[in-house]
Amino acid sequence: MSQPPSYARLEQRFARIANLDNALGILQWDQDTMMPEGAASARSDSLAMLKVMRHELLIDPALADLLPAAEQEVAADAWRAANVREMHRQYVHATAVPADLVEAVSKAVSESEMAWRKARRDDDFAALLPYLGEVLRLQRAVGEAKAAALGTSTYDALLDSYEPDGRSARIDVVFADLAEFLPSFTAAVLEAQAHRPAVLPLAGPFAPEAQRALGVKMMKALGFDFERGRLDVSLHPFCGGSDDDVRITTRYDEADFARSLMGVLHETGHALYEQGRPAAWKKQPVGQSRGMALHESQSLLIEMQACRSPQFITYAAPLMREAFGGTGPAWDAENLARLYKRVQRSLIRVDADEVTYPAHVILRYRLERAMIDGDLLLSDLPGAFRDGMKQLIGIEPPTDALGCMQDIHWPAGLWGYFPTYTLGAMTAAQLFDTAKQQLPDLLEQIAVGNFAPLVGWLRTNVHGKGSLLSTDDLLLEVTGKPLDAEVFKRHLRGRYLDGV
Amino acid sequence: MSQPPSYARLEQRFARIANLDNALGILQWDQDTMMPEGAASARSDSLAMLKVMRHELLIDPALADLLPAAEQEVAADAWRAANVREMHRQYVHATAVPADLVEAVSKAVSESEMAWRKARRDDDFAALLPYLGEVLRLQRAVGEAKAAALGTSTYDALLDSYEPDGRSARIDVVFADLAEFLPSFTAAVLEAQAHRPAVLPLAGPFAPEAQRALGVKMMKALGFDFERGRLDVSLHPFCGGSDDDVRITTRYDEADFARSLMGVLHETGHALYEQGRPAAWKKQPVGQSRGMALHESQSLLIEMQACRSPQFITYAAPLMREAFGGTGPAWDAENLARLYKRVQRSLIRVDADEVTYPAHVILRYRLERAMIDGDLLLSDLPGAFRDGMKQLIGIEPPTDALGCMQDIHWPAGLWGYFPTYTLGAMTAAQLFDTAKQQLPDLLEQIAVGNFAPLVGWLRTNVHGKGSLLSTDDLLLEVTGKPLDAEVFKRHLRGRYLDGV
Repeated sequence: MSQPPSYARLEQRFARIANLDNALGILQWDQDTMMPEGAASARSDSLAMLKVMRHELLIDPALADLLPAAEQEVAADAWRAANVREMHRQYVHATAVPADLVEAVSKAVSESEMAWRKARRDDDFAALLPYLGEVLRLQRAVGEAKAAALGTSTYDALLDSYEPDGRSARIDVVFADLAEFLPSFTAAVLEAQAHRPAVLPLAGPFAPEAQRALGVKMMKALGFDFERGRLDVSLHPFCGGSDDDVRITTRYDEADFARSLMGVLHETGHALYEQGRPAAWKKQPVGQSRGMALHESQSLLIEMQACRSPQFITYAAPLMREAFGGTGPAWDAENLARLYKRVQRSLIRVDADEVTYPAHVILRYRLERAMIDGDLLLSDLPGAFRDGMKQLIGIEPPTDALGCMQDIHWPAGLWGYFPTYTLGAMTAAQLFDTAKQQLPDLLEQIAVGNFAPLVGWLRTNVHGKGSLLSTDDLLLEVTGKPLDAEVFKRHLRGRYLDGV
Repeated sequence: MSQPPSYARLEQRFARIANLDNALGILQWDQDTMMPEGAASARSDSLAMLKVMRHELLIDPALADLLPAAEQEVAADAWRAANVREMHRQYVHATAVPADLVEAVSKAVSESEMAWRKARRDDDFAALLPYLGEVLRLQRAVGEAKAAALGTSTYDALLDSYEPDGRSARIDVVFADLAEFLPSFTAAVLEAQAHRPAVLPLAGPFAPEAQRALGVKMMKALGFDFERGRLDVSLHPFCGGSDDDVRITTRYDEADFARSLMGVLHETGHALYEQGRPAAWKKQPVGQSRGMALHESQSLLIEMQACRSPQFITYAAPLMREAFGGTGPAWDAENLARLYKRVQRSLIRVDADEVTYPAHVILRYRLERAMIDGDLLLSDLPGAFRDGMKQLIGIEPPTDALGCMQDIHWPAGLWGYFPTYTLGAMTAAQLFDTAKQQLPDLLEQIAVGNFAPLVGWLRTNVHGKGSLLSTDDLLLEVTGKPLDAEVFKRHLRGRYLDGV
């Protein structure tokens, strides 16, 4: 079948955008891994210009006619129709916000990030307040502009940038379920943990070369394709690059290999998703990964569901001992398993364990929504954050630096992003649960280092779907039900209350 | 003084082009150093698109009015006037060639490079002939189109792309001088060399880490700024990146550190030029390096003039011994000096020494000019190449693979590039000669590893000038005379006939 004319023109344009994204992905990776410090200003100019070029390709008025025409042309073809739907989403997001607002956001975010670094260091929320207030004001304006175009609430319009079709009405339901469950469950886990043997520490130092070699070995076992990606070092780990060039990073701590290794496995989960996207649609919107919740579900499915399972520890323990010359009871699978599922009430989200992490996220979600909706004044944030920590996690931050100023998201203008972390964790549990039902020897295969069944299942059911379905529809199709907190709770109970 | 309006608009446009060049430079570096193989196709798409965007910024019809208006506005300001002159040069080069010819060249070159790889492997010039013929035909068409716009001959129009204002009439004079000198001089050098002690080989292996550490130490001594650049590994060494992010590469041979080290010093010469460009004009055409001849002069001034001098060996010999644990007479400065100035008649240009290299270049220059002018048929190239080798170097290539097919330049469409190598070598000799006169203790400082006087002199007299002056005018201003083969010949006589 020959290409319908309007649709073909759109495909061509979005392929150009994908080529730009590919360039941007590598330049950003380079900035965080390779670039010498003195190049920061020139790089920032180059990135800003390429982003403007990308934006200009998206907001071209010609798209206003091409999109509905193409929609007609390809209505009978599921992939192409979904492609036009995703093009339209990008177009709406890009055109909804006037250029001067985009510029004001960029300036306010840049100033507020700088102010945040200083205010966090000085534990001085008052110093951050005016900058963060400006960011909040502008985020609300962006949300209102997008809400008018999308027909959603202001907060949902911001959420939609990270989580397409994500709606707070549905998030509220699953988060309420979890918020009720977590405080008493955390207490029960800590009680059970207190009756188990103490975790024996692993004695380092652990040479970075040995850590890297072990990470690469496990990445290969998981199916990461080094012909289409790399592993490097950066201050903050991430999964970047794009297309056939997925670049993940980690940071090596000579005193603790365990954290870096789990970080590598986490980023490998993201990378497998990227490497498994549908090849025929790589440069089209429908071939991109679905939203941040599903992306996070892929990293957490690998890290939390697969690679903190007792079966994974069975596979990994001898490799760890071999990599670092480890001997003695600290290196036994049982001790390693206890190490990898240790739970504690802690202040910092990024250091939190699987059990307490959702509480950190639910708190932030509720607070940011209240601020966007005008139900919480920014000046009342520190107190509200402390109260929420007490209620949900059971400890109170002694400072705002360790409280509401710990994360960069709000100063950086990433309002609407936080809920995707825990939506991802729940989605991971639900997908893994279904995979175990459909592949009865899944865990046994993991115990012998065979991840092919799991990754093959993900390729078919998640990665290869690209953005064909909404996250909700995909979950319904694959697991037979919508997102259900019960599955996640069952996973937590099984791992943290039972066993050694 | 406020910015004149037309000029200001041009500055803005060329700053955007510089931002794109910066991105292209890093993406190309990444392609050659970091990129996994599977990303080749996506990368090639991204690079091609960014190049098209760059071209579109240059050929915008608005420039046809802005350029003359700006010329009027800034006539009284030397730097700005030179900036407009260079903008105009780029505009003429970009607009002279019609888009379909650009596309045809790109296609022909890509096919001819592939054919060349196979034909060289099979030593089958006949197989290359049709592809190379198409490249030649198209290069001639490009040259004719540019010649009409520039008011030059066809060959000079091609040359002008690499060497602004370069003209074959002047090259003919200096190359004729050298071509007469070289055959008998080479014979005399080989005769003198035969009466010196044989070069003792240095016994490896030389660990890449130690080679790298020594290279970095010397780069730092030379003044390479690692805050604004990097040293990495690639198959073919180059100096890439741009702006405040200069990236040089090398390749380590465990059996021979000397070649890689001299390669690093060569690329450091290029890099010092890039890092020393006038900071205020970095994103403008006048702030770019002058043509390829001057660029090559900077690499050869560092590699050949400074770093193969006996004084450099005095400084470097103990560092080499220390780096590799070298002991015995092979590691004496005298033996190392003999190693670094060994001369032989050889077939391959890129392996040639300082004495025979110019003959390889003069041969290619004469042949490519004759082919562009229609005075030599491509089918007669193999014979003409063999005859020229015999006459200028004194040996005859046994095959075309080791003869006229050894270089990628012609299949790659780089017609007009070859002469810049030897123009660079001569320019380097002339600049270094003047530097020695103006800084009487220059060589003594090099002997103790102090390169600051030399590099400071280059910063003032070459690097900091950007493209303010033509190469000819710069040479005249700095050395008091135009390019003069006599200085280069004197340098060769001094180094290869005298001494140990």
